[in-house]
Amino acid sequence: MKINNIDYRTIWPDPANRQIIKIIDQRHLPHRLVIEDLRTVDDFARAIGEMHVRGAGLIGATAGFAMYSAILGADPDNVDKVLREAAEKLIATRPTATNLAWAVNRQLGAVEKGSDLAAQTGIIFENAMRIADEDAEFCRRLGEHGLEIIRDISRKKPGEPVNILTHCNAGWLAFVDYGSATAPIYAAHREGIKVHVWVDETRPWLQGAKLTAWELNEEGVPHTLIADNTGGHLMQHRMVDLVIVGTDRTTYTGDVANKIGTYLKALAAKDNQIPFYVALPSSTFDWQIRDGVREIPIEERSGEEIKRVTGLSESGRIETVAIAPATTETANYAFDVTPARLITGLITERGVCGASEEEILALYPEKRREGR
Amino acid sequence: MKINNIDYRTIWPDPANRQIIKIIDQRHLPHRLVIEDLRTVDDFARAIGEMHVRGAGLIGATAGFAMYSAILGADPDNVDKVLREAAEKLIATRPTATNLAWAVNRQLGAVEKGSDLAAQTGIIFENAMRIADEDAEFCRRLGEHGLEIIRDISRKKPGEPVNILTHCNAGWLAFVDYGSATAPIYAAHREGIKVHVWVDETRPWLQGAKLTAWELNEEGVPHTLIADNTGGHLMQHRMVDLVIVGTDRTTYTGDVANKIGTYLKALAAKDNQIPFYVALPSSTFDWQIRDGVREIPIEERSGEEIKRVTGLSESGRIETVAIAPATTETANYAFDVTPARLITGLITERGVCGASEEEILALYPEKRREGR
Repeated sequence: MKINNIDYRTIWPDPANRQIIKIIDQRHLPHRLVIEDLRTVDDFARAIGEMHVRGAGLIGATAGFAMYSAILGADPDNVDKVLREAAEKLIATRPTATNLAWAVNRQLGAVEKGSDLAAQTGIIFENAMRIADEDAEFCRRLGEHGLEIIRDISRKKPGEPVNILTHCNAGWLAFVDYGSATAPIYAAHREGIKVHVWVDETRPWLQGAKLTAWELNEEGVPHTLIADNTGGHLMQHRMVDLVIVGTDRTTYTGDVANKIGTYLKALAAKDNQIPFYVALPSSTFDWQIRDGVREIPIEERSGEEIKRVTGLSESGRIETVAIAPATTETANYAFDVTPARLITGLITERGVCGASEEEILALYPEKRREGR
Repeated sequence: MKINNIDYRTIWPDPANRQIIKIIDQRHLPHRLVIEDLRTVDDFARAIGEMHVRGAGLIGATAGFAMYSAILGADPDNVDKVLREAAEKLIATRPTATNLAWAVNRQLGAVEKGSDLAAQTGIIFENAMRIADEDAEFCRRLGEHGLEIIRDISRKKPGEPVNILTHCNAGWLAFVDYGSATAPIYAAHREGIKVHVWVDETRPWLQGAKLTAWELNEEGVPHTLIADNTGGHLMQHRMVDLVIVGTDRTTYTGDVANKIGTYLKALAAKDNQIPFYVALPSSTFDWQIRDGVREIPIEERSGEEIKRVTGLSESGRIETVAIAPATTETANYAFDVTPARLITGLITERGVCGASEEEILALYPEKRREGR
């Protein structure tokens, strides 16, 4: 997608030296565009854990390249051990994200088929590229499916914009390209369908204010930034036609882990009969877990994210300010789980389905297991 | 209540010169305790409109003293006009707050009974003091009634703290003393009942982070600051026993206008069968409006409150930082309305009742009108 009218992805190998992987260090947006070079597994683990990169698909793609960086430095006699240690380190960085383990395991599976170190390294690199390309392609496709939902609403209010509320950043910055929740919005905007996006600022990390508002701005999509508290009021007053969010992990039964606060918006959508959709490439499904509320591990992050806010000072410096008493205790749960009963549908690269085991497995029949 | 172990109220006449009214300028908390002198109606209107003071009861008490400041400067031939102009200016500062018009009208009603200017001025001052004292006394009493709810929950989990979630600041800083939502909490804490408060930070103005956390800290009440997005997750996981919030206007049918985001917490409480109470002195009832969602005017404030955050920089200065792209549009609705159907009960100075016309009028029978 566009930054200053130039096409970017969120992660790519340096064309001059593919051993260097380039990312947008998203901590500096919207104030500065900083491109960071990653070389070692520790660089990658830090980039994921400290949220230089974040978002379901991008965490997966970054983990794919991280495994490539691991094999680059490996002793030929020790490849397996090096890769398993890298895998462990990477998976520990963000406990809720499914795509992380999914990409790491896909790399572990690929390398076992290789032979000598050079061949294995080549396989791992190609596989990392494939994970990234697939992520972009799946997001593009789910955008096409989600576009139909927006088009249907638009037909019912000709000349008026379709008002879509989104929470957090499930934009192209959260994936390799296009995004999940934003992919249908970008597809609609490109077709000339009038859309307007309510952007939840998404405390504590402010992904909405810092990333979603910024990327919609760069793409020229009309939008309004709101405090996370506002969505219920807007829905009560029919100012929202549709909610689309992303997800960090969705069970095969349709329970959706996403950024903390998603559950509250789903409740408000239900209370006001507003359709609530979740967009995801299939890499975000967890095919093991049945009960999302009980079983999905919820990451807890540092309370400093609650007590301090970073932004651009009036003198043009990036500054961090404290907004609470220094001694106050905090709790910082990064995700919550929205039960399937509150979800109108899932938008995937294969099409739209209901948030139920039956409908999800009808779309992904290869995931059926005996006894399920 | 206590600041540094010294008893304060939020507003009081200067003991050396009662023509000067002193307030805590709450914009500087928790970082600095700033006491401000108010002398003219414009001082008062600015203090209310720019939120040096805020909160249902305190806005009312401040408006009472503002009318006193108006009469102080009045020409004896022009008292009525001066007071009516002051009333209009004051009521326009915060459209959602009922206590504002209630206090102003109470002063207009009082002055008509006066005779010469000196006598009228005396009446208005005494009436302002009475409004403030009544607010404190009503909060103290509702605290006693709310205490019983906390005591009942505490009995069912001996040795464990009662976990109470609150939104915004309905603490003593929002009233003259004690607070509304906090009054039962302070009463329970004083009796030795173990309580723990989940404090919503309350974007955009951060009344929870800046005021509620600070006042609970000064009183020694255990508490944890959370992002507004967190309450649903906590309720799903039985980490909340009770929600108590305040209100800026409650209809006689039980619909509750309160800080934006309250409705979302009420939905989550309902979804998880957690009791949701609203605490209010009767000055916050609106005896005219039947349908809160349709009829209560919702204040819209500047988008700068969304795009900029003020806090204490690492170098010890109060700084404001931008957290969103400069060109992004914002919407800043200050309140939402929680329908009566989501509310377990109202805690008033006369006792606890259900959020329904029947139960409210049973507690306030003098408000019954023919044909209602």
